Amino acid sequence: MNWLGLWRRTRNALAITSCFVGYSLFAGTASAQQSTPNILFILADNVGYGDIGVYGGSDLRGSPTPRIDQLAAEGLRLTQFLVEPSCTPSRAALMTGRYSIRSGLSLVAVAGTPFSLPEEEITMAEMLHDVGYATAMFGKWHLGGQTYSQPQNQGFDEFYGIPPGDTWDAFGMIRQGHQTKSVDIPLDRGPHLVEAKRGEQLKLVKPYTEEVRRGIDWELADRGVEFMTRQKAAGKPFFLYLPISRTHFPNLPSKRFEGASRIGQFGDSLMEGDAIVGTMLDALKDLGIEEDTIVVFASDNGPDGPGASPFGGDMPDMGTTGPYRGALGDVSEGAIRTAALIRWPQRIRPRSSYAMFSIMDFFPTFAHLAGGKVPDDRPIDGIDQSDLLLGEDDSGAREHLLTFVGSELVAVRWKQFRAYFADVAPGRSGPGGATPMGGVGSSAAPMNGYPKVFNIESDPQEEHNIGEMYNWVLGPLLKAVEEYKETLVRSPNPPAANMTKF
Amino acid sequence: MNWLGLWRRTRNALAITSCFVGYSLFAGTASAQQSTPNILFILADNVGYGDIGVYGGSDLRGSPTPRIDQLAAEGLRLTQFLVEPSCTPSRAALMTGRYSIRSGLSLVAVAGTPFSLPEEEITMAEMLHDVGYATAMFGKWHLGGQTYSQPQNQGFDEFYGIPPGDTWDAFGMIRQGHQTKSVDIPLDRGPHLVEAKRGEQLKLVKPYTEEVRRGIDWELADRGVEFMTRQKAAGKPFFLYLPISRTHFPNLPSKRFEGASRIGQFGDSLMEGDAIVGTMLDALKDLGIEEDTIVVFASDNGPDGPGASPFGGDMPDMGTTGPYRGALGDVSEGAIRTAALIRWPQRIRPRSSYAMFSIMDFFPTFAHLAGGKVPDDRPIDGIDQSDLLLGEDDSGAREHLLTFVGSELVAVRWKQFRAYFADVAPGRSGPGGATPMGGVGSSAAPMNGYPKVFNIESDPQEEHNIGEMYNWVLGPLLKAVEEYKETLVRSPNPPAANMTKF
Repeated sequence: MNWLGLWRRTRNALAITSCFVGYSLFAGTASAQQSTPNILFILADNVGYGDIGVYGGSDLRGSPTPRIDQLAAEGLRLTQFLVEPSCTPSRAALMTGRYSIRSGLSLVAVAGTPFSLPEEEITMAEMLHDVGYATAMFGKWHLGGQTYSQPQNQGFDEFYGIPPGDTWDAFGMIRQGHQTKSVDIPLDRGPHLVEAKRGEQLKLVKPYTEEVRRGIDWELADRGVEFMTRQKAAGKPFFLYLPISRTHFPNLPSKRFEGASRIGQFGDSLMEGDAIVGTMLDALKDLGIEEDTIVVFASDNGPDGPGASPFGGDMPDMGTTGPYRGALGDVSEGAIRTAALIRWPQRIRPRSSYAMFSIMDFFPTFAHLAGGKVPDDRPIDGIDQSDLLLGEDDSGAREHLLTFVGSELVAVRWKQFRAYFADVAPGRSGPGGATPMGGVGSSAAPMNGYPKVFNIESDPQEEHNIGEMYNWVLGPLLKAVEEYKETLVRSPNPPAANMTKF
Repeated sequence: MNWLGLWRRTRNALAITSCFVGYSLFAGTASAQQSTPNILFILADNVGYGDIGVYGGSDLRGSPTPRIDQLAAEGLRLTQFLVEPSCTPSRAALMTGRYSIRSGLSLVAVAGTPFSLPEEEITMAEMLHDVGYATAMFGKWHLGGQTYSQPQNQGFDEFYGIPPGDTWDAFGMIRQGHQTKSVDIPLDRGPHLVEAKRGEQLKLVKPYTEEVRRGIDWELADRGVEFMTRQKAAGKPFFLYLPISRTHFPNLPSKRFEGASRIGQFGDSLMEGDAIVGTMLDALKDLGIEEDTIVVFASDNGPDGPGASPFGGDMPDMGTTGPYRGALGDVSEGAIRTAALIRWPQRIRPRSSYAMFSIMDFFPTFAHLAGGKVPDDRPIDGIDQSDLLLGEDDSGAREHLLTFVGSELVAVRWKQFRAYFADVAPGRSGPGGATPMGGVGSSAAPMNGYPKVFNIESDPQEEHNIGEMYNWVLGPLLKAVEEYKETLVRSPNPPAANMTKF
């Protein structure tokens, strides 16, 4: 038995003892727990910080999310969960445990781009597969379309979902009705759903029509349940990554959710996403593996904002950031702070935590909990937060977070402060629109009017630049930047270009 | 033992007893209820829609409000409580049950203004006094300083608090250290707290220093508890109006609340306000009059915003609107939608309601519940919402609300839509800065680019003008405007000027 098993036993003994003392929240059959936890990771798309019930949504917004709220009641609610500003970057960071800029994916992958998750990246799925996990991904990959980047070649035993290199266009095409060509995927007959087993070539399953789009997340859930059922029967720990598509524009809820909310199709889709989460939670219960499974619900980035969506049209169709400034594609708090709930019965004490937690932190945290290996031949920006999860430490292990757009380091968070080193060009739509002006990452460009510093907690709208008054803050902020820059000497970043900022 | 000691003892006894009874929220002696309810109305200052725990604040913001949240658990949470854009207008609307423009108070009263609550206005206090209520107001009046406007001459038996004509300057002076002259109140020795019994002349009590400002709301609470205790002893129903000052700039929490929150002095002050609400709730319980008393907690307008406060300085010191656009002094949703909780055990079923409810609606609603008379010689814009409160009707009786700035009708809400008929001049600070450009209320001015129409529910940031697509909305919207205009034929508005917008 390794040390992990040892302290699990000790802890279980303690838990059992505590049953007789009155407080019985953690009662049950602790000793029967699986040795390594299953991981069910549900990633929502463009859900803002203020959308979920336990984040100020619910009746206040007119789109209740009781099943996701249930995760908060039974698990850990992170009130400072930080991501990257948009879809591809956040997903790259989640899969690799590194800033997306290290894999060249710090902008959004669009159809035909050669920028794609590099073969040599080690994903969370590879890490878990290496220690015996069954791995599956059903949904939206969005890390480039090259063969070596596809989920079935990046650690997943099974993949079903939206074409991995064309997500953005696939959403767009439905609405716009035009076609596109793709890298390495025969989509010239229009967008199709695809699937593959480990190492296989992608197969087209069926046309990705509007009707299929309306129902796809239920397909993903069904496949997810079937996968979990198989692994339970086989006695194998599993990692199921379920990046659902509900709340991404254009929002197309299923017929039975149309009009369910008070706030239009975004709200309807949010409620449908909640029902899908509920389906997964019910399945875990039915399979009797609730206590053996870590469930994460998280959102990839802030909500779609005005102007951010090229298909936005006149009618808003998006979530809310709560009190924070900005939206998807910005670098302000509303773009990079989202919802995250983590449940692991008997192990994670139900509570709310203000600890800073990055989407990159899941990689080393899961590695710790599953006995996996964190690569030591490259910089890993994620921090092991298992002490936070397990209640050994309530302040968390993270104090700072960098935010990149394209090749530029644009902003840095340190404790409650945020510094901007550059602005982002206002023309946000289309490839090339995301060139930051200057930035601490660029060589000799002047920093006119920068850095700007804001106190996110007392000034969530980032309207009071306190850079002059609080210039001492730049010390620790720049230290984080320097530490990052030092890693570039041995591990330079690949080029990042020809993509779009959202 | 003084009365305070007495109720503390009683309370402990009750606490011990309750251990043996279990769940008893709705248990007990309905038949023993007083025939007309007491009313305790706590009005908060510049608390935004998103600040209170049950409105998305709490741990999410770092300034928990458990005692106010308790009102939501035990009473009605209104998620669409609508006010006027700033302090004086909202308070005028509350007291008169009419749009503030009808009493000439649609801008903020500043020191020396002749615009003051007219003698002939009938206040909520007068209405309740006429049906046998003991009435008291402790706190901030802010409806002008003329003798006839003062609380003790507008229906209140007792008044103690901030000078009624100088609130704004009184806050300002503390910070700025300069002095001002006042109408009818001898404040040339600097700001003082004042008091008066019904019909008396105001008396100076003590200098309104920074130390007094820090502690004043506790004084108000103590006087409130003492007043309620007296009325309980006398067997008289009471109306206690408690407009506290905590969250108005400059935020000066008591020493023991300094640093209590994560977000600075605004949050500290919010938490202190919560404790003050708790003190009042405890007192009701200790006096055994919980079930006989309607408790309202509401905020007068949206939070102070950047630029709105002439004393704002570099450091933010304000609340949040949640997802809604704007702040104090604007006419957008963030300025006019705030928190409101109403508790009346056994009569109001605990729940959340999306019904539209204006601050003006309290007047006719209380008149109905207390057997008072709503004036019939003048337009009353408030609507009796007692059916909503008592659960007879869950959609509420209100479908629209007009918003004025100065003499202009600037915006109208109808169902989930908001139309703007004019913009508000951007220069917001100082008297005269609030002149709207054009507006449906003005005669022949062109409406360049107006009206603009927004769907508040799906577009809380008011970024997508849907006026062209949804022009049918203007029908019912303009009908509300026409109905208002018709009332002006017999009851023209008094002039409103020489004041400031926030």
